[in-house]
Amino acid sequence: MLKEHRTNVLLHGDPQGAEPLRKAIAAYLNLERGAKVYPEQILVLSSTRQSLFLCAQLLVDAGKPILLENPGYFGARKAFESAEARIVPIDVDEQGIRMALLRADRSGANCLYVTPSHQYPTGATLPLERRLELINWAAENGKWIIEDDYDSEFHYEGLPTACVQGLDKYQRTLYLGTFSKTLYPGLRIGYMALPHELVKAFTYARSIMDGHTPQILQLTLARFMEDGHYNSHVRAMRKLYAGRRAVLLRALGQHLGDVVTALRPEGGLQIPCLLAEGWSEEKTIRQAEAAGVQLAGLSRLYAGEQKRAGWILGYASLTDYEIETAVQRLASVLKR
Amino acid sequence: MLKEHRTNVLLHGDPQGAEPLRKAIAAYLNLERGAKVYPEQILVLSSTRQSLFLCAQLLVDAGKPILLENPGYFGARKAFESAEARIVPIDVDEQGIRMALLRADRSGANCLYVTPSHQYPTGATLPLERRLELINWAAENGKWIIEDDYDSEFHYEGLPTACVQGLDKYQRTLYLGTFSKTLYPGLRIGYMALPHELVKAFTYARSIMDGHTPQILQLTLARFMEDGHYNSHVRAMRKLYAGRRAVLLRALGQHLGDVVTALRPEGGLQIPCLLAEGWSEEKTIRQAEAAGVQLAGLSRLYAGEQKRAGWILGYASLTDYEIETAVQRLASVLKR
Repeated sequence: MLKEHRTNVLLHGDPQGAEPLRKAIAAYLNLERGAKVYPEQILVLSSTRQSLFLCAQLLVDAGKPILLENPGYFGARKAFESAEARIVPIDVDEQGIRMALLRADRSGANCLYVTPSHQYPTGATLPLERRLELINWAAENGKWIIEDDYDSEFHYEGLPTACVQGLDKYQRTLYLGTFSKTLYPGLRIGYMALPHELVKAFTYARSIMDGHTPQILQLTLARFMEDGHYNSHVRAMRKLYAGRRAVLLRALGQHLGDVVTALRPEGGLQIPCLLAEGWSEEKTIRQAEAAGVQLAGLSRLYAGEQKRAGWILGYASLTDYEIETAVQRLASVLKR
Repeated sequence: MLKEHRTNVLLHGDPQGAEPLRKAIAAYLNLERGAKVYPEQILVLSSTRQSLFLCAQLLVDAGKPILLENPGYFGARKAFESAEARIVPIDVDEQGIRMALLRADRSGANCLYVTPSHQYPTGATLPLERRLELINWAAENGKWIIEDDYDSEFHYEGLPTACVQGLDKYQRTLYLGTFSKTLYPGLRIGYMALPHELVKAFTYARSIMDGHTPQILQLTLARFMEDGHYNSHVRAMRKLYAGRRAVLLRALGQHLGDVVTALRPEGGLQIPCLLAEGWSEEKTIRQAEAAGVQLAGLSRLYAGEQKRAGWILGYASLTDYEIETAVQRLASVLKR
């Protein structure tokens, strides 16, 4: 009842996110990812999943088309399918999304989902020229680019490329980031950096969906970032993961060189492997399973006919010894 | 990759909610609210807002009708409106929802939202006979009852009535609860107790929307409940709020007895007040605002013509002194 009544910052949160955290995220993106973003453009959410759900709800009407990379991230496909959008796959090559196919698209889609840092699952990094071409395509045709910059914190070879958001002077890019990989998924904090004109609508939709993100977690994370701990943690983990990646690549070459060709993405936490002629994805996965090794198949990530057989191997949570053991066990069961 | 790989309970959460918390909530509901519910029926969410959003998404198709109490909770109306449902208001009387109107409804709605513990905003407690009638209506006609049991922890006069969920042997009731009022809203933990047949669909929809609720918060709350602190806290707050309620009722009678009639809901954290003849809701709110007292109007909670003019006064976060001051200030500005 009383207007001057004390307010407790922990009691009620801003649906857009706690200001200190929005500031810390904007500073991080501008410094580390070459973004050009103000705290007013940041929307703090629970996860990339929630970001995708919001995009699907707000940008794509039921029955309307959405452009997705092929092969691509099943989480994105699931989010748009659950909003009853019509998936239009655009093939990628070893450099990422193929711009000629995008320019030729006549589906009427107003929105494209991409993973430019390292394409999921191929690991391709979209070169600067394609990024600029992509931005021009979006600006000229009034399209939205949903840039999922997942795992961009983990880049091992050469300099990371500036994110599409930072290059896009036309405000056509919705940038998606998360702390699920750099910290832990049970934290449930992700975020979007939005074009100015979308901030209000996305914030309102989020407030209807679930109000806001827990305040204690937001303010704790903001402090963790402000004090520099987050950057140190990412640096330490980058070094650790680079080591594990090297162990996995070496073990694959040594024990399974005749079975799979391991791709070498410049970053990320997964190694895609293409099976050699004569090896069945389904059968190798079944054999591995029986030997206690879980493999994720590559082919299910493709729409249409041009499926590639193989696996996508995550190594981030395994020690060097566990990685070596898993690959050896895999080789012995496959070559039995 | 390795199947036997250690899993960390903090890393990834169950979309349905952490088991210890689901157990603690089920035990609480069965003991304190007369519910009949197993932990397998509990879905841990971020808030009642998210529960309502899920209900709107899963139970009501766009363009289809949904039955809401009139007057009723605007948050529920907003959730169903945002899902493009058609709102069908059912009038309440001093005992809550009017069963004759419900039985006469021919809108084709398959779902009713109610606040039986103390109806929002009138504060009416739905009597046992009406609860049983409601359950029979739902069972006979294949309807769903969404029982929002908000603030049921705070009951001051007489014994609280068992919740509809506990009386419903036909599994037609979706029970909504939250920790926003008993602990604090920035915690972002609410829950539903679902009929067995709905658990899977609701859990899946929630997993698509935002994955799960933060693990640390869930496990901390579970421990807090298991160790008995939650029940003690609620007991302590019930006593505190009962005192504040008495102060507010006394102050209203003393200073504003000729302006408003205060209703005396048996529980909750709000006092609805009906304005006497000749007093304008809009004008009194404006005058109060200028004097630093914020009032929420009653009439906006009504659909259709039968609006009652008045205020709904929240007192939970004010001290006795602040309540007394606010009412005095209000009286002096209105009677100037």
